[in-house]
Amino acid sequence: MLSFAIIGAGRIGAVHARSVAAHPAARLALVADPDGEAAARIAGSVGSSGVRSTTDVADVFAATDVDAVIVGSPTRFHVPQIVAAVEAGKAVLTEKPVDLDLARVDECLAAVGDRADRVMVGFNRRFDPGFAEIARRVADGEIGALEQLTIISRDPAAAPAPYLVGSGGIFRDMTIHDFDMARFLLGEITEVSAVGQNLDPDIAAIGDFDAAVVTLRGANGGVATIINSRHCAAGYDQRLEAFGPLGSLEAANHTATAVRFNGRGVSGSSGPYLDFFLQRYEHAYSAELDHFITAIESGVAPSPSLRDGREALVLADAATVSATTGERVRLGAPVSA
Amino acid sequence: MLSFAIIGAGRIGAVHARSVAAHPAARLALVADPDGEAAARIAGSVGSSGVRSTTDVADVFAATDVDAVIVGSPTRFHVPQIVAAVEAGKAVLTEKPVDLDLARVDECLAAVGDRADRVMVGFNRRFDPGFAEIARRVADGEIGALEQLTIISRDPAAAPAPYLVGSGGIFRDMTIHDFDMARFLLGEITEVSAVGQNLDPDIAAIGDFDAAVVTLRGANGGVATIINSRHCAAGYDQRLEAFGPLGSLEAANHTATAVRFNGRGVSGSSGPYLDFFLQRYEHAYSAELDHFITAIESGVAPSPSLRDGREALVLADAATVSATTGERVRLGAPVSA
Amino acid sequence: MLSFAIIGAGRIGAVHARSVAAHPAARLALVADPDGEAAARIAGSVGSSGVRSTTDVADVFAATDVDAVIVGSPTRFHVPQIVAAVEAGKAVLTEKPVDLDLARVDECLAAVGDRADRVMVGFNRRFDPGFAEIARRVADGEIGALEQLTIISRDPAAAPAPYLVGSGGIFRDMTIHDFDMARFLLGEITEVSAVGQNLDPDIAAIGDFDAAVVTLRGANGGVATIINSRHCAAGYDQRLEAFGPLGSLEAANHTATAVRFNGRGVSGSSGPYLDFFLQRYEHAYSAELDHFITAIESGVAPSPSLRDGREALVLADAATVSATTGERVRLGAPVSA
Amino acid sequence: MLSFAIIGAGRIGAVHARSVAAHPAARLALVADPDGEAAARIAGSVGSSGVRSTTDVADVFAATDVDAVIVGSPTRFHVPQIVAAVEAGKAVLTEKPVDLDLARVDECLAAVGDRADRVMVGFNRRFDPGFAEIARRVADGEIGALEQLTIISRDPAAAPAPYLVGSGGIFRDMTIHDFDMARFLLGEITEVSAVGQNLDPDIAAIGDFDAAVVTLRGANGGVATIINSRHCAAGYDQRLEAFGPLGSLEAANHTATAVRFNGRGVSGSSGPYLDFFLQRYEHAYSAELDHFITAIESGVAPSPSLRDGREALVLADAATVSATTGERVRLGAPVSA
Repeated sequence: MLSFAIIGAGRIGAVHARSVAAHPAARLALVADPDGEAAARIAGSVGSSGVRSTTDVADVFAATDVDAVIVGSPTRFHVPQIVAAVEAGKAVLTEKPVDLDLARVDECLAAVGDRADRVMVGFNRRFDPGFAEIARRVADGEIGALEQLTIISRDPAAAPAPYLVGSGGIFRDMTIHDFDMARFLLGEITEVSAVGQNLDPDIAAIGDFDAAVVTLRGANGGVATIINSRHCAAGYDQRLEAFGPLGSLEAANHTATAVRFNGRGVSGSSGPYLDFFLQRYEHAYSAELDHFITAIESGVAPSPSLRDGREALVLADAATVSATTGERVRLGAPVSA
Repeated sequence: MLSFAIIGAGRIGAVHARSVAAHPAARLALVADPDGEAAARIAGSVGSSGVRSTTDVADVFAATDVDAVIVGSPTRFHVPQIVAAVEAGKAVLTEKPVDLDLARVDECLAAVGDRADRVMVGFNRRFDPGFAEIARRVADGEIGALEQLTIISRDPAAAPAPYLVGSGGIFRDMTIHDFDMARFLLGEITEVSAVGQNLDPDIAAIGDFDAAVVTLRGANGGVATIINSRHCAAGYDQRLEAFGPLGSLEAANHTATAVRFNGRGVSGSSGPYLDFFLQRYEHAYSAELDHFITAIESGVAPSPSLRDGREALVLADAATVSATTGERVRLGAPVSA
Repeated sequence: MLSFAIIGAGRIGAVHARSVAAHPAARLALVADPDGEAAARIAGSVGSSGVRSTTDVADVFAATDVDAVIVGSPTRFHVPQIVAAVEAGKAVLTEKPVDLDLARVDECLAAVGDRADRVMVGFNRRFDPGFAEIARRVADGEIGALEQLTIISRDPAAAPAPYLVGSGGIFRDMTIHDFDMARFLLGEITEVSAVGQNLDPDIAAIGDFDAAVVTLRGANGGVATIINSRHCAAGYDQRLEAFGPLGSLEAANHTATAVRFNGRGVSGSSGPYLDFFLQRYEHAYSAELDHFITAIESGVAPSPSLRDGREALVLADAATVSATTGERVRLGAPVSA
Repeated sequence: MLSFAIIGAGRIGAVHARSVAAHPAARLALVADPDGEAAARIAGSVGSSGVRSTTDVADVFAATDVDAVIVGSPTRFHVPQIVAAVEAGKAVLTEKPVDLDLARVDECLAAVGDRADRVMVGFNRRFDPGFAEIARRVADGEIGALEQLTIISRDPAAAPAPYLVGSGGIFRDMTIHDFDMARFLLGEITEVSAVGQNLDPDIAAIGDFDAAVVTLRGANGGVATIINSRHCAAGYDQRLEAFGPLGSLEAANHTATAVRFNGRGVSGSSGPYLDFFLQRYEHAYSAELDHFITAIESGVAPSPSLRDGREALVLADAATVSATTGERVRLGAPVSA
């Protein structure tokens, strides 16, 4: 039984609280947030008695009944909280990105040192049953060596501008999931080329793109293409295709039910895609937590690691440079897993 | 090279004229119809010179340059024309049904005698690439012994009442195709149970059903279910599912293109089903003709045979009785292929 | 907050225990089963403390902290336990069928009287998100009046013969769900025609069918067709199509993921259907419980009712007669909801 | 009635001969090829009498009964034959590419001058019913302004090395179709970025790529992504997705039939994609010819034009540079339609 504290009582903190409460080998002990009401609300929501809440994050690190910390605070707090939690002997599951500044991620890695094998980064999509199935089948050689990977990832609608201002830009905020997925399936990346689009003038005004296409070349000769947009009329568009000499594996979008309508002028019509990540990746969050618990309990390093978090940021930085300068970026040092 | 005459210059005659013109081993010599203009129009439509037309069907039987006759006249003329053509030494491809009256079909069989192996009945659906593929894969044992066959067959809209009045009723006019398909896949039928529906008062007024469900029990223990309707908002609904112990094979509906729309509230939406039999079974008509030519040229009996035409009518008669009386009909003598 | 006891610590009891534990407005108080270890195991499995277990079902009716009873015992105990629970003032959610003997169901209805509005029968499929969506859209008039309903329901593999011997036969044990679904969508049924199949000699030896096709005529002119089999190589085959003058709504099968494979000789290949009812109807069980709780808490009668349980059995009895005698069965008295 | 000569008796010449023969407003008069037997074979294959053949292409330009010339010879002969045919007063339908050398294409444009409105380039995919439907629906505003276009185009297997040596490279030989499609849907292109892959050492040995990803930025802010491979295990992979603010339109792959298999471990499995362009674009070739005939007969310029042929080559050249140098190529002068 692993005892958890959650830092951050926002939307993602609530998701993790539910996952912890539902997991047979986990219990929730403490929720911390400067907004004490929000912390208390999540602490009280999970149906177990005895979950504490606090406005002082130091309580988390000091708590002797907390084995593991889920870091779901705003990004700028991730690094100090990861370091403090590790130094207090806790295992850590941190939301992505580790930080928006590569230098700070490297400081985090240095500070954590060998204890990085007790830290996991929440790239939840690796745990989506469909994507995980494709990763497994590719690894099993079903399609031969992965030659072309196509990731289509579109949000239903852009987040409000105030959120996007501090987001680090589309590549560090949104594409970062796809960069991790590209590394997950294709391995080491050597070259990044990105084209940004400014379709929404409000987003252009804050110096960010709202759509982009990124091409990544893998060290093994494969190429990944990522197609992003901040909006999608039909819902949260999350698809992936892995192509090799023996065939291809596609993960299609999800709809709420398998009902199809046929009528005047139309056939085979389904409902829209699931709305957003909480619905689409509901199972992924549970499976992610389960992996973390199993790894920590059995003393093996959970994955994706802090270093995976770093390498996704390296790709995001390179894409930012490429989209801005129009030049292809070759990664000087190999990106290792 | 087989030289053809076509009797009947209606819609189906035009289809056959095009198929004959396009077939490398066939030529069209003569078109006969009491409506001489219609006959001439079809004769002139195929892009070859020298196609004659006539208002006198006797010219067909007398023509020394005609090897084969396609009978596409109204149903009541089928039997005398089949017999006359056979007696004139022609091979015959006749539209279904052979006749609406089983006694007359039996007279036809008696008159034709051994020469029945030069007569084919145009159950075109056996030649649909999808249904034919399923028949072949079932015969190859891919799903094991056929246990349950489900045929859904719905027209886009009911034919006008004047046509339906003389049609022999839904079972002899429309379901007859499905009865043949059931025999094609399931073999000999021993028992028929039918439920008729009167959803359209105009069709009820002429003493016919406009929808029906028929259950057929096969001698081998399999059961076929046929679901019919005279209307379907999304187009011509033509599906089939063959189920056995090792799996199932489904033939899905066809749409004009493989384009799908995703948008606000909807995903995966295709266009409607192809409109009606001329579009849906375009390939089937060509393949049917090709089979007929190949069989006649090589001296083997074409299939489906006159007897297949008879047995489909036996099932239609039984379904008519069952739907009217509410009783299940056991077929006294085995229905042989 | 509704406090529950569960009678029966088998597979379905475990499902209900999890649903109760996960529901924010429910708590599990007591589990009863003659097998005390099984009862204790389920009581201990839900992660809450203080769940009691007993081998004496009388404890359930006597418990002052139990508001509602879930009856998940073998079928022959349903009626006495429903009656006892109701007389003890409990609300009841009972598994189907209410009983295999219509006379006993009628006794149950008589004994329960007005308190039947506190009893719900667990026809879980009404709560499947896909089927429920179709029911709602049909009720909203999207396809016009329901004319033809097609239900395909095939189990992955037959239950062991010892279970089937006491099952009441395929119509009362398996098709009963489809009878309820037909009534749910089509309303009152006036006529039943059934064809049974004996493909499996072991099941034939115990006097039961292992596959069947049933046709039901509705009072409103619609017809429902039910196609059942005790086996299906690709998994649990659960489909439904509602057809009306304005279009049709289909509920397709579910697979574990939305991954599709394309390769040598194949395209668009998904994994098998979900294995069986616990996987396929996982959401339905939760939604069923939620409806029960909401109805009981707000003092309205839950649905499907005891009378719905009775009418499904009437149809099962009629189908049994029809399949055995070969005659269509007209239902003397209208079947009212 | 338009009278045609075909130059080139290879595979594509045979396709055009069949299309001409089947078109009610066209007749085939002459087939020219240095291989006289091949020319005669095609001349004799179409079922009309009086089709001549020749080994001397000059006969085509001299023939007074030839209105239109289809140029299906090897690429290096296209320009002189286009010019000679135009100068002889013929309309021209030429296969793509116009030439592999942009300077020669410009010479061709200069030589043809105003008579370019009698020349059409055979970018057959514009006439594929699915792609044409998407183009029409995009033009109708169904998805709003086109923001992201994704074209996946994979051949079933690489052509033999001797063919590829003279092909001009993957971008001029294969991607050229996709460049035209991108311009067809997205309009003017301002920027090209390409990544080439060397998965097949035989193709690498001749200095060509066998797979590539190309990103094109449109003048209107849209971005097109083209994903190519010279091989695909499941057949000829031809897909397209147009995405805009109001939704997306996808053209899926085609299979020979709509049959799907479900069985142990698998569901929804179709046959492979259609094998190659002759099967996949059969309808497109007919529709292309029909457009050409209609345009020429009515005196309007057919489309795609010679200039469209030029602009596709400009993109292919830019992609070649980008893939070789690793730099993005900005197109100096706007690419006009």
